[in-house]
Amino acid sequence: MDTTTDLRVNTERLLASLEAVSSFGATPAGGLSRLALSAEDALAREYLRAQALDHGLGVSSDQIGNIFVTLPGRDPDLPSVLIGSHLDSQPFGGRYDGTYGVLAGLEVLRTVSESGKRPLRSIVLADWTNEEGARFAPSMMGSAVFAGRLRLEDALATRDQDGTTVAEALAEIGQRTSPGSGTFQLHRSFELHIEQGPILETLETAIGVVTGVQGIHWLDVRLTGTQGHAGTVPAASRRDPMAAAGRVAASIAELPSSLGPDLRATVGAVHVVPNARNVIPAEVLLEVDLRHPVAEVLEEATARIRALGADLASRTRVTIETRDVLHQEPIAFDPGSTAIVRRAAKRLGLSTLDLAAGAGHDAVQLSFTVPTAMIFIPCIGGVSHVENEDIRPEWAVQGANVLLGSVIDAANEGATR
Amino acid sequence: MDTTTDLRVNTERLLASLEAVSSFGATPAGGLSRLALSAEDALAREYLRAQALDHGLGVSSDQIGNIFVTLPGRDPDLPSVLIGSHLDSQPFGGRYDGTYGVLAGLEVLRTVSESGKRPLRSIVLADWTNEEGARFAPSMMGSAVFAGRLRLEDALATRDQDGTTVAEALAEIGQRTSPGSGTFQLHRSFELHIEQGPILETLETAIGVVTGVQGIHWLDVRLTGTQGHAGTVPAASRRDPMAAAGRVAASIAELPSSLGPDLRATVGAVHVVPNARNVIPAEVLLEVDLRHPVAEVLEEATARIRALGADLASRTRVTIETRDVLHQEPIAFDPGSTAIVRRAAKRLGLSTLDLAAGAGHDAVQLSFTVPTAMIFIPCIGGVSHVENEDIRPEWAVQGANVLLGSVIDAANEGATR
Repeated sequence: MDTTTDLRVNTERLLASLEAVSSFGATPAGGLSRLALSAEDALAREYLRAQALDHGLGVSSDQIGNIFVTLPGRDPDLPSVLIGSHLDSQPFGGRYDGTYGVLAGLEVLRTVSESGKRPLRSIVLADWTNEEGARFAPSMMGSAVFAGRLRLEDALATRDQDGTTVAEALAEIGQRTSPGSGTFQLHRSFELHIEQGPILETLETAIGVVTGVQGIHWLDVRLTGTQGHAGTVPAASRRDPMAAAGRVAASIAELPSSLGPDLRATVGAVHVVPNARNVIPAEVLLEVDLRHPVAEVLEEATARIRALGADLASRTRVTIETRDVLHQEPIAFDPGSTAIVRRAAKRLGLSTLDLAAGAGHDAVQLSFTVPTAMIFIPCIGGVSHVENEDIRPEWAVQGANVLLGSVIDAANEGATR
Repeated sequence: MDTTTDLRVNTERLLASLEAVSSFGATPAGGLSRLALSAEDALAREYLRAQALDHGLGVSSDQIGNIFVTLPGRDPDLPSVLIGSHLDSQPFGGRYDGTYGVLAGLEVLRTVSESGKRPLRSIVLADWTNEEGARFAPSMMGSAVFAGRLRLEDALATRDQDGTTVAEALAEIGQRTSPGSGTFQLHRSFELHIEQGPILETLETAIGVVTGVQGIHWLDVRLTGTQGHAGTVPAASRRDPMAAAGRVAASIAELPSSLGPDLRATVGAVHVVPNARNVIPAEVLLEVDLRHPVAEVLEEATARIRALGADLASRTRVTIETRDVLHQEPIAFDPGSTAIVRRAAKRLGLSTLDLAAGAGHDAVQLSFTVPTAMIFIPCIGGVSHVENEDIRPEWAVQGANVLLGSVIDAANEGATR
């Protein structure tokens, strides 16, 4: 058995780094406003760079501003193992979304470096530029450019609301790099992140083994009837789209009971025309969000909504149209990398749960070019993208140790035991 | 049998007067903008006054600007029979709402006057000031003052959006009258009006015998859950108010199937917080409008919504509050006066339907002080308060003849046959 499995991160140093980086862009309510490539983001990046250099780690960056911290392996020519997440935040976001993954990665590199037990392959920590997409769209920009899924020139030319391009913003904070940097071969990649949902906390599970990312279907269900006076038109003469809309909304909420608990079915928005108490509406529009890790289940959920709409339309004389707004296919992470995570958690005696991520992450971009897995830790109340996003210190340490074990295992793959 | 039952209104004169008055405040789309006490309203009032005087009828007015046209009976000291409606319109209203009732009343007075068959009691036609309430709130102002249900001083001090009082507006169009005018005893009152709903046209019925005015309950149903990410919170962990709101909306639409076809049940407005597709809502507010001619049925409908809310709240962990916003008791018109209308229609061989009015009318104010009934004629498509409000000429004539017969019958009550 490899003695590196006895390694543990430095708890105090990890928590201190989380505390330190929380000051860059701190909001009065305890959250963060650290938009990508802002002055606050620059401070967090500088912190990472300085800590890495302090510990004798290599630091480089690429043309989109991704920062790479490298611990060379015994054979630096072999494809490396990558740890990646992001230091940018939403406008009024939380301290841990992204930042936790980067700082846990830094702690992993420091721990391995200090141990003197150098793994076979190099370990690279990435701080991906602009994961949030809050200042510059699209999100996951730096990782998408790295993975060859977004053209560098297009990303650099993207403007924020003030008209500043990504290229200008990078230059402003001194983060532009000459061409040619940031190219290296990867063996596996890992991302450690807060769950941003309530499942792990509810089930009192320490570690989420993320098997993939849910696919997303966005639908608009538009119900059209005949506007009329609430006091005069009798029920038999009405073409009231609200009655049918109520049935559609209630049925969508019940889809998980027949299609399984992994289905997320939400009617998040309703638009009524004219939206006056004493007027039978002319139109009701329901905005629907469906998510599931399996494409076929998503298709079935959509088909059932269409069928319900057709059935209600035939029975109520209301016109019902269902329109596709967004189709995002599910992502399956690499089972080999996922198995490494599961084993690392088991070695530490931590409970695990296989689950699918509900939102996009840099790991999704990486997964198209390198075997990838994600590790989730719980977050309090399941809340994220809010200023009171929070985690327990023990959760942070547990996640970092699972990352440490996973990365060491991956970095020693191909070594003679 | 009284030979006055052979009398019929002058069709051409009635239709010509409707055409003539449609020019005062005419809109390009064929409707009317004739706000109460505006220059356009003054023109319509002047037309009424001039036509009345032309036919030798008496004209007076009271301090709130109500105009009274009088045909003296054989015994002018007996309480009179009143016909009333209004010449003012909504900002972009139709030609017939109110105006039809006044001009049909004028035609009735002219027909009786020309016949030389003077009834026992005087017949008085009222043009009530500001029925619509569009310029000065509340609606039914003139009739409410006349019926002693609104203080004259309060009505006169009411201001429009420009700060002009009713008193100033009356003075501006030369309609102020000295105290003491406009006091007389009434025996019965009648109002002829377009239905403003689709029932008569749909059932191909000539005459609506209005037995009363629906009571109105306005409720807010507020459903409160827990806001969350549409992609991460599983169904079992959700407190999704939208699912319950859908069931409430659908159930409200079904109330008439168990509580009877006279119930009008409408969810006209929905407010969702935050109303974003990918966010499980924190709150959904349904604005409910319930109407029925019988108070007990309205109470039962409200009770069922409350019970459904309580049941859903206990089963879904969503908090559901039902709040009363408005309670307007039903009005029952005088059965004796209603019977007179029904008989008059039968004599003319016209089909009738007993129904309840869905909206307020001047007749409601009168009904508190004098035995009152209303007569409805169909309107095309059931639409009103819109510029393309329309009626068929034969409907207008049929309604005027029913009014004529009813008024003559009422005016001869107490006479020796």
